[in-house]
Amino acid sequence: MNDWDKLVTVEQMEEATNALLETGKKVGADSWQQRVKNQTPHCGFGEAGTCCRICTMGPCRITPKSPRGICGCDVHGIVARNYLRFTAGGAATHSDHGRSICHTLYQAKEGGAYQVKDAEKLTRIAHEWGIETEGRDIYEVAHEVAEVALMEYGKPFGVQRFLKRAPEHTQKLWHDAEIEPRAIDREVSQSMHMTHMGCSSLPEALIKQSLRAGLSDGWGGSMCGTEFSDVLFGTPKPVDTTANIGVMEKDMVNIIVHGHDPSLSEMVVFYANDPEMIALAKEQGAKGINVAGVCCTGNEVAMRKGIPMAGNFLQQENVVLTGACEAIVVDVQCIFPALGPLSKCFHTKFITTSPIAQMPDAEYMRFSEETAAENAKKIVRTAVLNFKNRDQSLVNIPQLKSKARVGYSVEAIKKCLDGVTNSHVDETGTLKPLADCVKSGVLRGAVAMVGCNNPKVRPDYAHIELMKKLLKNDIIVVVSGCSAQAAAKAGLMDPELAPQYCGEGLKRVCKLVGIPPVLHMGSCVDISRMMILAADLAKDWGINISQIPLVGCAPEWMSEKAVSIGNYVVATGIDTYLGVDPYSKGSTEVTELLQGETGCKEWVEAHYIVDTDIESLGDKMIADIEAKRAALAI
Amino acid sequence: MNDWDKLVTVEQMEEATNALLETGKKVGADSWQQRVKNQTPHCGFGEAGTCCRICTMGPCRITPKSPRGICGCDVHGIVARNYLRFTAGGAATHSDHGRSICHTLYQAKEGGAYQVKDAEKLTRIAHEWGIETEGRDIYEVAHEVAEVALMEYGKPFGVQRFLKRAPEHTQKLWHDAEIEPRAIDREVSQSMHMTHMGCSSLPEALIKQSLRAGLSDGWGGSMCGTEFSDVLFGTPKPVDTTANIGVMEKDMVNIIVHGHDPSLSEMVVFYANDPEMIALAKEQGAKGINVAGVCCTGNEVAMRKGIPMAGNFLQQENVVLTGACEAIVVDVQCIFPALGPLSKCFHTKFITTSPIAQMPDAEYMRFSEETAAENAKKIVRTAVLNFKNRDQSLVNIPQLKSKARVGYSVEAIKKCLDGVTNSHVDETGTLKPLADCVKSGVLRGAVAMVGCNNPKVRPDYAHIELMKKLLKNDIIVVVSGCSAQAAAKAGLMDPELAPQYCGEGLKRVCKLVGIPPVLHMGSCVDISRMMILAADLAKDWGINISQIPLVGCAPEWMSEKAVSIGNYVVATGIDTYLGVDPYSKGSTEVTELLQGETGCKEWVEAHYIVDTDIESLGDKMIADIEAKRAALAI
Repeated sequence: MNDWDKLVTVEQMEEATNALLETGKKVGADSWQQRVKNQTPHCGFGEAGTCCRICTMGPCRITPKSPRGICGCDVHGIVARNYLRFTAGGAATHSDHGRSICHTLYQAKEGGAYQVKDAEKLTRIAHEWGIETEGRDIYEVAHEVAEVALMEYGKPFGVQRFLKRAPEHTQKLWHDAEIEPRAIDREVSQSMHMTHMGCSSLPEALIKQSLRAGLSDGWGGSMCGTEFSDVLFGTPKPVDTTANIGVMEKDMVNIIVHGHDPSLSEMVVFYANDPEMIALAKEQGAKGINVAGVCCTGNEVAMRKGIPMAGNFLQQENVVLTGACEAIVVDVQCIFPALGPLSKCFHTKFITTSPIAQMPDAEYMRFSEETAAENAKKIVRTAVLNFKNRDQSLVNIPQLKSKARVGYSVEAIKKCLDGVTNSHVDETGTLKPLADCVKSGVLRGAVAMVGCNNPKVRPDYAHIELMKKLLKNDIIVVVSGCSAQAAAKAGLMDPELAPQYCGEGLKRVCKLVGIPPVLHMGSCVDISRMMILAADLAKDWGINISQIPLVGCAPEWMSEKAVSIGNYVVATGIDTYLGVDPYSKGSTEVTELLQGETGCKEWVEAHYIVDTDIESLGDKMIADIEAKRAALAI
Repeated sequence: MNDWDKLVTVEQMEEATNALLETGKKVGADSWQQRVKNQTPHCGFGEAGTCCRICTMGPCRITPKSPRGICGCDVHGIVARNYLRFTAGGAATHSDHGRSICHTLYQAKEGGAYQVKDAEKLTRIAHEWGIETEGRDIYEVAHEVAEVALMEYGKPFGVQRFLKRAPEHTQKLWHDAEIEPRAIDREVSQSMHMTHMGCSSLPEALIKQSLRAGLSDGWGGSMCGTEFSDVLFGTPKPVDTTANIGVMEKDMVNIIVHGHDPSLSEMVVFYANDPEMIALAKEQGAKGINVAGVCCTGNEVAMRKGIPMAGNFLQQENVVLTGACEAIVVDVQCIFPALGPLSKCFHTKFITTSPIAQMPDAEYMRFSEETAAENAKKIVRTAVLNFKNRDQSLVNIPQLKSKARVGYSVEAIKKCLDGVTNSHVDETGTLKPLADCVKSGVLRGAVAMVGCNNPKVRPDYAHIELMKKLLKNDIIVVVSGCSAQAAAKAGLMDPELAPQYCGEGLKRVCKLVGIPPVLHMGSCVDISRMMILAADLAKDWGINISQIPLVGCAPEWMSEKAVSIGNYVVATGIDTYLGVDPYSKGSTEVTELLQGETGCKEWVEAHYIVDTDIESLGDKMIADIEAKRAALAI
């Protein structure tokens, strides 16, 4: 059914979704599409950031006739406080995920459910942190590294250890602006404190703290999440897989893993391959067990295991609507509570597993690192035994599926580049070949495209259309999160197909290096990989990060994590393009600090550009990249 | 002008305020009274807790026609998430204040700006925490204790150390409900994570985490704040002072300290007594320097130094409106940003000092522990030199002033009780005499009255009228924060006057022990003192905390801190009465968990009672106390 020779269009995906919604109607299911209608129009105060609910004297809303809240805070203070709280929510969320990975590393042991898969990376980090490795058992090292990492969340003194990975120039900017993050959780707590009634109302102070909290995520909690997931589950390298709703298998037990933390999904994947479980599946009349992923949990297991990606954020209801989902197993973040009632319309088991992500109408099977194996086995068994309850009359798996090569960690990218390096003459393991391509103009630059879906933007359209535009302009795209899955679903990670849609330069690079033009770098915590990539590229090139013809883009973002990410990407010196306004348009001062030539731009040499017209957003990115080229006289 | 023989009434205070507002009108000043009018009516969604702004798919508002947010979260999940975030804001704020005190302790040194004033308390805590003191320099001990305390904010493993101070029964409840707080900041971060889009929407889980975050404040961050403030600045003991706007002095330089952290105000008080500064004040034509306090900074210096209290939260604008305020010097929390523009209508210097509480239209004089002495001296000098800029035609200091005896730390209360103990027969240093008074019925019970002002309640009226009602019923009242200042302003802390307003039993106790019937226990972090009091009373009495005829009450609360406090008071087993709804009435499930017989009541043996009718709130408290007496058969 697949036409492997063409990209899958957004129209095709929408058609498939519409067919699934028809099934939904049959069983009386609610849908996000319907809820968007119910919730429109949204509150204008909330959207502008001009409503304050921080104390119970209010809520207060700013209008020309009521220009200040009861405490006297003006619109700029209110918008800036809301912005900082939004950031704090995101930084806490990513970082707490990272913390959970550190705790998993602390539990790792020889022969245990969790083991050290990338000892080389662990050793590298140990050395970076001054931890002795010589002659020590790798698990002893792992536990000490884990403890030191956990202390990054709460140490009373000092700043984040990973900051030292940035170019010195960047470190100096952070120091001078007083935005070097200290303990990760402290930045979250302090953000809450600053925004408490009667604390900060000066936008400059609040936006600086937003950058600091963001940095505590990107160069702290998220980086811990990425690095120690690699240590535990392996550092990704190129692997072929498939993407889109069609990865679900009609004749197999379909287990969907969804959320963000790989500790659970790695175990589920492991037990789905257990001969005992496969035999059980066959007993139940299935041909086997098919695990597929949604959202970042999907990205994690795709990157490391080649597990197919069923869809991204706004496709999570679709997997249930196929009628062929035996279990949707979730950990944390971006999980629609709607899956509870929706799963009740089908045979699907909606299995929550985390004490911090419990939802009504779910089956709660508490998962913990200590009992990971038995928990995962029970989950897989539950799914398998549910196969027989499938109502065949409801089954409809739209045949949309694209090939994708994924797994582009920084290490993998460097390895790919080594392949085109003359090892007799040049140093290997660097990004110099990439710098050379950009300098020569074969590549005009790069865009880091990230972030969620948001019904305020036609789902996936902005991701896919922007990527196509960039590729045509010889701009290579690195992606993560839901943006990565949008690309994969469309076929933009197919190393055979996608280069056809590129400009001549980029096409040549793809063929030569053997990569797709859109490189999947992982989940949303893995945007920390992009920071390392930018930092290393700046060092290898000998310029500042802000000089690289590189921009960030989140055209369809919706979550607090995305704002935290945006802040650390900007704070790292990378202009960031947003297709959805971060509830900040109600304040000219905040808008200037975030998007103008003062504020962020002065402190960290980069800023935000918000444009809800996606075409125009793309044009601006290309112009920005060309302007950076011109400034470098390349 | 004072009639020392009568309580000051709310009507008298309102009259004084009205006169000050007349001055305000003359100079074109805004006022909270006007802003309340501008902001009324408030948003009904916000007040009910049924608006969600946690991601940018929304904002979503729950109505019968739109019963779920776009993600599918129902009204109970939305209200519960908002409630947890509100708590997290409060827990972070109190605790970050506590952290700052720990850092100050870490800076303390022999002969330095900060010294150990209560070595006995420090030694006691060191022993409690297993830190060696024998033969060690007290500052060496102080620094180690400070480091261990700072680790309570971020330690990767274990729960709060101070939990062990609670009765075993209480500790067991916490353990069984899985609400023992781990690192303080971790509970804040996890609260933010749980409430992130697509994490928790199960009210039980969210309300439990609210209790846990609250406990991380009350038995963690706030307790650190209290204990180490005592170590640094002295544990309060009874001291006589005065309260109300009339404490400002017409012929003196008036410096108002406002906020929460005593590290700054202690230094300001010190330099206001510096002969050099007094001489300078006289040079400027003043008779001297008068420091008075507002909000909890006011409570801190009143409790330890007998500094007069100019007013509480909703009186902060009044001090400027007197036209006689040379400087209002603020640290953190509950500071109206309105003070910026207001001070511009007068000669008043509005001096912000904290990097985390910067405001527009202020003079920012950054204060840090390392340079405390010079910072404080500069601030005092600025105020003194501003005396000559006073516009005498605007000066109006309403002559309202009451006597107050304050300084009732738990240590001080025990010492007072020792005075009525027969030391030949009975153990001293216990709360047994208090238990005996309650058992015998001389005292019917106790109310811990705390919290802010809120324009939704007639300011101070609920505090004062409830206290009068309780006193008449032989119920002793312990107070902190703005509630304490309301009492002091009215004269309810005057040990000569106030007993006249008590029932016979309480009157006898006051006379015998030499105390006022309303005991000032300190600032809002000092509600931790009340937890110790309740814990020790339960132990000395041999019953559970929830059995003591004791309730908590915050009739006029407005801040997130108050909800965090409410949660830890309830979690400690004390029923808590609120006069303002915590934005939770939109969910029947959340209301049941907080106020019903399930949820909190089952987990921790106490719950909330919300009643905006103050008379009825008082009746319910008395009935609750009598019911607890009946259950004890006393």
